[in-house]
Amino acid sequence: MKVQGRHIRSIWLDDDGWSVNAIDQRRLPHHFVVERLTTCDSAAEAIRSMLVRGAPLIGATAAYGMALAMRADSTDRALDHAYRMLIATRPTAINLKWALDEMLSLLRPLSAADRMAAAYSRAADIAEEDVVINKGIGRHGLAVIEKIAATKKRGERVNVLTHCNAGWLATVDWGTATAPIYLAHEQGRDVHVWVDETRPRNQGASLTAWELGHHGVPHTVVPDNTGGHLMQHGLVDLVIVGTDRVTANGDVCNKIGTYLKALAARDNGVPFYVALPSPTIDFSVDDGLTQIPIEQRAADEVSTITGLTAAGTIETVRIVPEGSPVANYAFDVTPARLVTGLITERGVLKPDRAALSAAFPERIATAAE
Amino acid sequence: MKVQGRHIRSIWLDDDGWSVNAIDQRRLPHHFVVERLTTCDSAAEAIRSMLVRGAPLIGATAAYGMALAMRADSTDRALDHAYRMLIATRPTAINLKWALDEMLSLLRPLSAADRMAAAYSRAADIAEEDVVINKGIGRHGLAVIEKIAATKKRGERVNVLTHCNAGWLATVDWGTATAPIYLAHEQGRDVHVWVDETRPRNQGASLTAWELGHHGVPHTVVPDNTGGHLMQHGLVDLVIVGTDRVTANGDVCNKIGTYLKALAARDNGVPFYVALPSPTIDFSVDDGLTQIPIEQRAADEVSTITGLTAAGTIETVRIVPEGSPVANYAFDVTPARLVTGLITERGVLKPDRAALSAAFPERIATAAE
Repeated sequence: MKVQGRHIRSIWLDDDGWSVNAIDQRRLPHHFVVERLTTCDSAAEAIRSMLVRGAPLIGATAAYGMALAMRADSTDRALDHAYRMLIATRPTAINLKWALDEMLSLLRPLSAADRMAAAYSRAADIAEEDVVINKGIGRHGLAVIEKIAATKKRGERVNVLTHCNAGWLATVDWGTATAPIYLAHEQGRDVHVWVDETRPRNQGASLTAWELGHHGVPHTVVPDNTGGHLMQHGLVDLVIVGTDRVTANGDVCNKIGTYLKALAARDNGVPFYVALPSPTIDFSVDDGLTQIPIEQRAADEVSTITGLTAAGTIETVRIVPEGSPVANYAFDVTPARLVTGLITERGVLKPDRAALSAAFPERIATAAE
Repeated sequence: MKVQGRHIRSIWLDDDGWSVNAIDQRRLPHHFVVERLTTCDSAAEAIRSMLVRGAPLIGATAAYGMALAMRADSTDRALDHAYRMLIATRPTAINLKWALDEMLSLLRPLSAADRMAAAYSRAADIAEEDVVINKGIGRHGLAVIEKIAATKKRGERVNVLTHCNAGWLATVDWGTATAPIYLAHEQGRDVHVWVDETRPRNQGASLTAWELGHHGVPHTVVPDNTGGHLMQHGLVDLVIVGTDRVTANGDVCNKIGTYLKALAARDNGVPFYVALPSPTIDFSVDDGLTQIPIEQRAADEVSTITGLTAAGTIETVRIVPEGSPVANYAFDVTPARLVTGLITERGVLKPDRAALSAAFPERIATAAE
């Protein structure tokens, strides 16, 4: 997508043909800084420090980390060392393990001399595959938006509400929840996005708003408290969010607060869609509410906040009284009954086992093994 | 309630017998500063600048402002001037006009020589009447909490979720939504409060958490996104919120985001109560959703946030990218169908016209005039 008028991805091979560029997402939205990763160590550190984040982008960064490792030393020992270093960066990220296993099973049988070229080639493919999946999500989601646009009068915009950042910054390009929005915008549809700021980490205000702004998509940032009021007053036509995990029954685990928006959507007859690449479906889990453990994160994500001072410096300020305890649940689960449809690269599916199994039969076979 | 171990109100007459002390609420929660108001001008400025806020506290401050005016000059001209100055401070606050009209109708017929003493006396009564109303709310709400406590095993706490600040800082003492909580705590009940931080102005994190902490009530600050997840997991026994206006049909206008919590409460079978002094009921309005205009406030309340730096200074930081538009709806409306009960000084009422009319027949007569 576009940044400062130029098409860019969240990660790309440098013109030198070997080093890897990634946007330092910790510094967004106030500073746009591209970091050049030149070693496996620096790729690992980029993941660990959340310079890059978002499951698909983490996978692509890890794959490139393996390529950078092979460039420095393509022995078996170096291969194993790189795998171990990278897998330890974010223990719970599914795409991270998937990408590293892909790289290891490809590189292990090769001679040391062949590993570097093969690693760069596969890393590029992993990045490209993510883009293809997201474009697929975009096409299927576009049909949903177009159906709503067809009911509008001339000059009326389609209002989409989204929560957190399931944008191109979380992937290699296009994003998941944002892919239909970017596609609709590129096709000249009059789309406007309500961006939940998404406390406590503010990925909506910091990342989604930044993305949409640079790409020229009309949007408005709102406190997370606002969505219900907007829906009551007919100001939201549909909700599209991303997800971290979807169960076999269609329950959706996503950033804390998603469930509240799904309730408001149901109460006001607003369609509630979840966009996801199919690897996000976890066929080993049925009931999201009882079976998905919810991560609790550090208190200081709630009790402090970081931003730009009038003087142009980045400062962290405390916003909770000293001595007041804080809880920081990172995700919640939206029951399938509140979900209108799951927008996947293979179409918009009903959130139930039958529809998911029918669309991804090869995953059922694997899960049963 | 207690601050630093000492009982205190939000406004009180100084030991000198004439000047008026008020907590500077703009400086909470990081600094506890008491401002001494010595003139009508300073009382007006305290309301205007939001040194004091909350409808009942604004009313009491305005009443004391009239007393301070009469102390300086008790002529008719001074009386009218004080009224005009004070009424212009916060044009939409209902209690402000009520308190000022009370003072004017009392003072106008008196001789100039009698006005000062009468003004101080009525101002003290207005403050005391607020305390009495809130204690009434507290007693009726306590019964609700005790009923839930009776279902708990030994050692299990009663978890109350609240939104925004309907605490003693918004009133003269006790608060509305907090009155039942303080009473339960004083009676040795094991009560714990989930405090919504309440973006964008963060009255929950800044004021409610500060109040509860100083009074020794166990509490935990959570992002506004969290309540649904807590309710799904049985971690909330009841919700108690305040309100800015309740319609004759029982619709509840309150801080933006209240509606989302009411939806989550309904979805999880959690009782949802609204605490209010009866003047908050507006018998002239039926349908909250179509008839109550929702104020939109300044964008910088959303795009920036103020807090305490590590160095101990107060700093404001920008948290939304430059150029991203922002919307800031201050309130939303929770339909009566989602409200379990209205906790008033005359008992816990069903949120409907019949119950409200029966409890406040004198208000119906007035509204029909």
